[in-house]
Amino acid sequence: MPDPRPSPYPFLYERVIRRALEEDLGGAGDITTDAIVNPDRRASGNIVARARGCVAGLQIAAAAFRLLDPSVEIDERVADGAEVEPGRVLAAVRGPARPILSAERTALNLLGRLSGIATATRALVTAVAGHRAHIVCTRKTTPGLRALEKYAVRAGGGANHRFGLDDAVLIKDNHRAIAGGIVPALEAVRRHVGHMVKIEVEVDTIDQLEAALGAGADAVLLDNMTLPDLARAVALSRGRAVTEASGGITLETAREVAATGVDLISVGWITHSAPQLDVALDIE
Amino acid sequence: MPDPRPSPYPFLYERVIRRALEEDLGGAGDITTDAIVNPDRRASGNIVARARGCVAGLQIAAAAFRLLDPSVEIDERVADGAEVEPGRVLAAVRGPARPILSAERTALNLLGRLSGIATATRALVTAVAGHRAHIVCTRKTTPGLRALEKYAVRAGGGANHRFGLDDAVLIKDNHRAIAGGIVPALEAVRRHVGHMVKIEVEVDTIDQLEAALGAGADAVLLDNMTLPDLARAVALSRGRAVTEASGGITLETAREVAATGVDLISVGWITHSAPQLDVALDIE
Amino acid sequence: MPDPRPSPYPFLYERVIRRALEEDLGGAGDITTDAIVNPDRRASGNIVARARGCVAGLQIAAAAFRLLDPSVEIDERVADGAEVEPGRVLAAVRGPARPILSAERTALNLLGRLSGIATATRALVTAVAGHRAHIVCTRKTTPGLRALEKYAVRAGGGANHRFGLDDAVLIKDNHRAIAGGIVPALEAVRRHVGHMVKIEVEVDTIDQLEAALGAGADAVLLDNMTLPDLARAVALSRGRAVTEASGGITLETAREVAATGVDLISVGWITHSAPQLDVALDIE
Amino acid sequence: MPDPRPSPYPFLYERVIRRALEEDLGGAGDITTDAIVNPDRRASGNIVARARGCVAGLQIAAAAFRLLDPSVEIDERVADGAEVEPGRVLAAVRGPARPILSAERTALNLLGRLSGIATATRALVTAVAGHRAHIVCTRKTTPGLRALEKYAVRAGGGANHRFGLDDAVLIKDNHRAIAGGIVPALEAVRRHVGHMVKIEVEVDTIDQLEAALGAGADAVLLDNMTLPDLARAVALSRGRAVTEASGGITLETAREVAATGVDLISVGWITHSAPQLDVALDIE
Amino acid sequence: MPDPRPSPYPFLYERVIRRALEEDLGGAGDITTDAIVNPDRRASGNIVARARGCVAGLQIAAAAFRLLDPSVEIDERVADGAEVEPGRVLAAVRGPARPILSAERTALNLLGRLSGIATATRALVTAVAGHRAHIVCTRKTTPGLRALEKYAVRAGGGANHRFGLDDAVLIKDNHRAIAGGIVPALEAVRRHVGHMVKIEVEVDTIDQLEAALGAGADAVLLDNMTLPDLARAVALSRGRAVTEASGGITLETAREVAATGVDLISVGWITHSAPQLDVALDIE
Amino acid sequence: MPDPRPSPYPFLYERVIRRALEEDLGGAGDITTDAIVNPDRRASGNIVARARGCVAGLQIAAAAFRLLDPSVEIDERVADGAEVEPGRVLAAVRGPARPILSAERTALNLLGRLSGIATATRALVTAVAGHRAHIVCTRKTTPGLRALEKYAVRAGGGANHRFGLDDAVLIKDNHRAIAGGIVPALEAVRRHVGHMVKIEVEVDTIDQLEAALGAGADAVLLDNMTLPDLARAVALSRGRAVTEASGGITLETAREVAATGVDLISVGWITHSAPQLDVALDIE
Repeated sequence: MPDPRPSPYPFLYERVIRRALEEDLGGAGDITTDAIVNPDRRASGNIVARARGCVAGLQIAAAAFRLLDPSVEIDERVADGAEVEPGRVLAAVRGPARPILSAERTALNLLGRLSGIATATRALVTAVAGHRAHIVCTRKTTPGLRALEKYAVRAGGGANHRFGLDDAVLIKDNHRAIAGGIVPALEAVRRHVGHMVKIEVEVDTIDQLEAALGAGADAVLLDNMTLPDLARAVALSRGRAVTEASGGITLETAREVAATGVDLISVGWITHSAPQLDVALDIE
Repeated sequence: MPDPRPSPYPFLYERVIRRALEEDLGGAGDITTDAIVNPDRRASGNIVARARGCVAGLQIAAAAFRLLDPSVEIDERVADGAEVEPGRVLAAVRGPARPILSAERTALNLLGRLSGIATATRALVTAVAGHRAHIVCTRKTTPGLRALEKYAVRAGGGANHRFGLDDAVLIKDNHRAIAGGIVPALEAVRRHVGHMVKIEVEVDTIDQLEAALGAGADAVLLDNMTLPDLARAVALSRGRAVTEASGGITLETAREVAATGVDLISVGWITHSAPQLDVALDIE
Repeated sequence: MPDPRPSPYPFLYERVIRRALEEDLGGAGDITTDAIVNPDRRASGNIVARARGCVAGLQIAAAAFRLLDPSVEIDERVADGAEVEPGRVLAAVRGPARPILSAERTALNLLGRLSGIATATRALVTAVAGHRAHIVCTRKTTPGLRALEKYAVRAGGGANHRFGLDDAVLIKDNHRAIAGGIVPALEAVRRHVGHMVKIEVEVDTIDQLEAALGAGADAVLLDNMTLPDLARAVALSRGRAVTEASGGITLETAREVAATGVDLISVGWITHSAPQLDVALDIE
Repeated sequence: MPDPRPSPYPFLYERVIRRALEEDLGGAGDITTDAIVNPDRRASGNIVARARGCVAGLQIAAAAFRLLDPSVEIDERVADGAEVEPGRVLAAVRGPARPILSAERTALNLLGRLSGIATATRALVTAVAGHRAHIVCTRKTTPGLRALEKYAVRAGGGANHRFGLDDAVLIKDNHRAIAGGIVPALEAVRRHVGHMVKIEVEVDTIDQLEAALGAGADAVLLDNMTLPDLARAVALSRGRAVTEASGGITLETAREVAATGVDLISVGWITHSAPQLDVALDIE
Repeated sequence: MPDPRPSPYPFLYERVIRRALEEDLGGAGDITTDAIVNPDRRASGNIVARARGCVAGLQIAAAAFRLLDPSVEIDERVADGAEVEPGRVLAAVRGPARPILSAERTALNLLGRLSGIATATRALVTAVAGHRAHIVCTRKTTPGLRALEKYAVRAGGGANHRFGLDDAVLIKDNHRAIAGGIVPALEAVRRHVGHMVKIEVEVDTIDQLEAALGAGADAVLLDNMTLPDLARAVALSRGRAVTEASGGITLETAREVAATGVDLISVGWITHSAPQLDVALDIE
Repeated sequence: MPDPRPSPYPFLYERVIRRALEEDLGGAGDITTDAIVNPDRRASGNIVARARGCVAGLQIAAAAFRLLDPSVEIDERVADGAEVEPGRVLAAVRGPARPILSAERTALNLLGRLSGIATATRALVTAVAGHRAHIVCTRKTTPGLRALEKYAVRAGGGANHRFGLDDAVLIKDNHRAIAGGIVPALEAVRRHVGHMVKIEVEVDTIDQLEAALGAGADAVLLDNMTLPDLARAVALSRGRAVTEASGGITLETAREVAATGVDLISVGWITHSAPQLDVALDIE
């Protein structure tokens, strides 16, 4: 199972948090808190899970508070990737009351979303346990949050597919049609991209699979295949290409897909449709 | 029911789309498409719904294609707010093949997410039909996408709560605790904010409600009240303040909540946990 | 009188200061100071008022120095909102000489402008003392500086009208004309905006006022009315809507306008035409 | 008299206008206009002067409308630099009603401010007519608007002093004190800056002037000198350095200062304290 | 040989050009041209090569002119990748004289630099002609210009190594040392990265090479090896990994390195030290 | 010789470094280092010169490490402007291993480029030693890096020509042609620009030089003149204008050009074509 680790450089994700804070604070700031809470007032509280799930994004949530006021202290009580029960304290927060109240929603929006993705991923990872299949994400991520959401997938125990259109090749049906077949498509790609770029080919049939394998694809995306076809594709691909099953795979069907022996199961819904994990800030 | 209208100024949302495209194209661009597809090649296709739902964001999706290449033509076949069946063509797309393929995912990610929010909203709106209650969203939106998501709620037939911490006052339990009660909290706020700012107070009990009404709150957020308490709160508030029911309201419970006569039912999950509407681009 | 408090989050206004510093330093920086002043050289001095007025923006000025060099120490000797005489020391500045000299003009430009606004506001506030009227600002602010200028108005003892076109409704004559009257305009707005948005209607005549009050406007802007009409409008509006007098009100006429009993007197010139307060940095 | 010409490249100033529009439209846009005005509704009107003055910034105002909607047509009826009477139509505006109403305030805020600066400048230029003195501005400009305000000064008939700390040297009293005199300050600067950089020295006395002239200053800033001293300084500087009178010069005193024969009269108040010119948009 | 094609989306590189123009035009713009050249004045001219070389960046240069004024017409006379002699016209430029003169230097700076890189690359490509080796670039690019410089390498006939630290793995000596060997380093990487990421290992010795091949590296970077060792490494790697020779390879030594049979020859100097191609704009 | 001093305000150049880091780290970060190196692992090493040259940019390189992680310590062992031999330690680096490895290339790319420029400049400065001529740079700099490259020229002992089109006037042949001669060009400029702007005129012939001197140019750019013409031009210009020789001057010809007595020798290649200085980070 891939080892989840957050980006070590806050500098890479602070811009996202800054925009979220600006979006919420607008021109006038938190007019409720500014009116009611004295600048000297201090507060402490706990970020708690209100539902069972897998946590991701505690450092991101912490950064939201600290961007408003660097003196807010956040003491993480669990690590990203931990599975928690309702009521579990995820982090303790302490500092001036104003930034704690004003950044609360931004911090929780980020933490809840990322933890929701990690939770969905973890459920799938657990469902396929014992099989070789890794759960991988897609490019169906929230605009502006891709790097964070890809991290949440890793925190949930999943692996990352390509990050964007620029870092790997995926020859899809439209590319194949325009190129006039898998082989000419692969040849065009090989002339264009460097040696550090992997090439995956989406195939719908065993015939297409054989063309892709013959042309030397690094990986094959087996799209919407039946279980028997998946098994046959896995057998054909062994030692030649990484196999990825894709297309409408759910928590219920993932295990039988994994049983076909595929290397990877890719699912869009862990990023585009996972409900958020319910998290809250309980001020003492 | 509020009249859904998108923002008329692309200039206000293009930045979000631009960031999404940059995120996907990275430094090297769409290396698959650039390698395979000739610059002169043209393509046409349809954006179709693959599931039943309510559409929102067609202009946003169109802007994604046009930001890459202004010569891409998008012909919208339904209007935002329309309820569609699976297979319904939402828009026809025609132009150079490269930008159509390269912007496809960004456009669909935005359209799917916004339509998912509109669909969830519409389901609630339908559930409470015949009652006075409007469905309203919260600040539990995706970081960076709030204005678009608030628009999707309007397209679904819902109404918008405040856009941020800066444009209206909501006195929550923590504010009340810090101020030493609802009345001092309201007084502090009145000294601080201008005459164009409305003030809502979150109340958990009928006692708190009476304090808030007595102090002249414009609106009261009735948090996690029982149905009988909600009905009583509505009766007490009539002619004095707008009533908003909140707290764990689902598609199943919305109608009985509405039956209490509340003015508004606010739900966070239409923005933070609505599954996206499945939309696809079928190239001809 | 509203309680003046600056935004507690430097993060919200530092961008403005940063742009001002970049604008002044350009590509080559402060070539005079860099050539003459040794990096080790230290300096200390006082920011002093050279004219009588009301101070606003000391934290903003301090941030300008500290953005160039965080080791510059600024010791505020008065608080924003203080009325000062010529010669009064507003803050002591101490640290490396280079950033003190290089940020001086940016810091003073901001402090002088904001204090000028506070001074003009305070003069009006004083002029209407004893009456219920608050002095409020408009959207006639300097492009890019609205949030800071609205703060300066609060520091001067005034109150803020809406911050932008997005946070409250003001139905003006053009809107009324296009909608075909005050009542249809108000109805259109009610269908469109959420429950947390207040609605003000600009009226020129008593007839219009009665229409606005009848339609339930939260506030009425009494535009260019005679004193007797203002008094009549106030009487009609009592208990029904907040009254705002507007249109060419000067320091000379403010008191008689206030005497009509209006709740608010709005004046554009405190932000668009207030002369700056003369402030200087005296290096010891 | 310098020839006023605006920057030919909208790209250089559009960022300022964009920020101003974003500041006013916020996340939700112009909620009043969006609710009331049908997208198809068209409008036309005139930008008119409500006071006598000198116009500057018509292209800037036009850009504000067009940034919201490029189909808005603006027909300029006078050129920047023109002196106008109250009631004079400055430009005709025609197009979709929504962007015309939504950009109105931003456009007028910019036009009014820049025209106010041009008007103040023109008054001074007229006051010194017949003498050699040019009116020049300072770095006491509005943060973020310097380039536009320097243009307004040119439109008013004035000339520009340096644009920032980076494009010319001005040795002030603090620099002189730190360097240990005018001569060492000038020497340090000469070692540091390139041959395309001019050097001006601020002097308070005739002795200092002689030192500056002896050391080869390109220009001398005669700070707060009496009229006889100014005349003497002009005589001493003839053929050796440009002379600039500075310090509290008003519309009343400018002519007698000019009569001393100085080349330049610099005034901060034309940018930091000029009241805006009253301009309005009259919709037909 | 890879097929050179520029990015089809100006949107991806316009930001770089915009910054370059802002850097050159500053706050005051092109004061020489604005003073001398009438807005109506038109000009035409040719961009010509003053030295022999390989062209890259004509679309980038064109974009520089058009960002200032979209009405400037640029007629490209050769395509990127063309080899040209001194005096060859690369493009004809026609339009308003002001933007042509004001954008000239920015356009030529970009075109000269990119063409210099293409020229250096082409020289190496020619030197190894007949061998299988491709010339590839490194991450030793100009800060801020990487995507454009990588394109110039492709235009010159070279291929691209990874674009950044994020799109492929390169295990260098320091990583190996920290991991305690090539095998543990590769294992750590495999647990962390997705299936679409290629892994290259830098090796200094044949022993290290064997470890890398045994552990399944996709590519091996043969660092500073002797020609005989290179040949031996190529033989060992055949059918197992892509071979890349690196380390101080010059135009003189490239052919003998290629003769060892390596797949790739990587050279940093084509991006970090290539002299620019001398290009000029001759106005008629 | 001008005194080299870096900009004292990191705030002015950090944006360039930030963009370079973002360009290299992309969305996924340094996937190699993140996979292999434990967050607790520390490292230390030396930045060393691998070739003889003149150093510039150590503070810039240090800022690259510290932007990723402020706890990285950099101990500079030589000052910018120092001439170093191969193997010389320029700075010691110590701190967490991850940011040291991840920022290494960005830091070295900046340091190598700036030191390459300083080295080329120093060679020219040395070549003309004993003559009055200063070596000056041009606007032929790398897009986005002008301020840093101008600093590198100063570190190498050179002087800066104008920073951009906005801070000084240079009347070139095209301007002269459009204006109809040097005298009308100069007159147009004088009407347009302020008193703090210097004016240089490019001349090809002695006739043009006489016109420029007669019209009062501050400096003359003697373009591609023969050595005898240069000497004659210098004699004519003495006491009237600064003389600048320009046009294809190399390390070989610089001394004989200097011997003509010109004040300045400007060379584009020290910024556009200087090979970088080979610098490396040796981890212990």
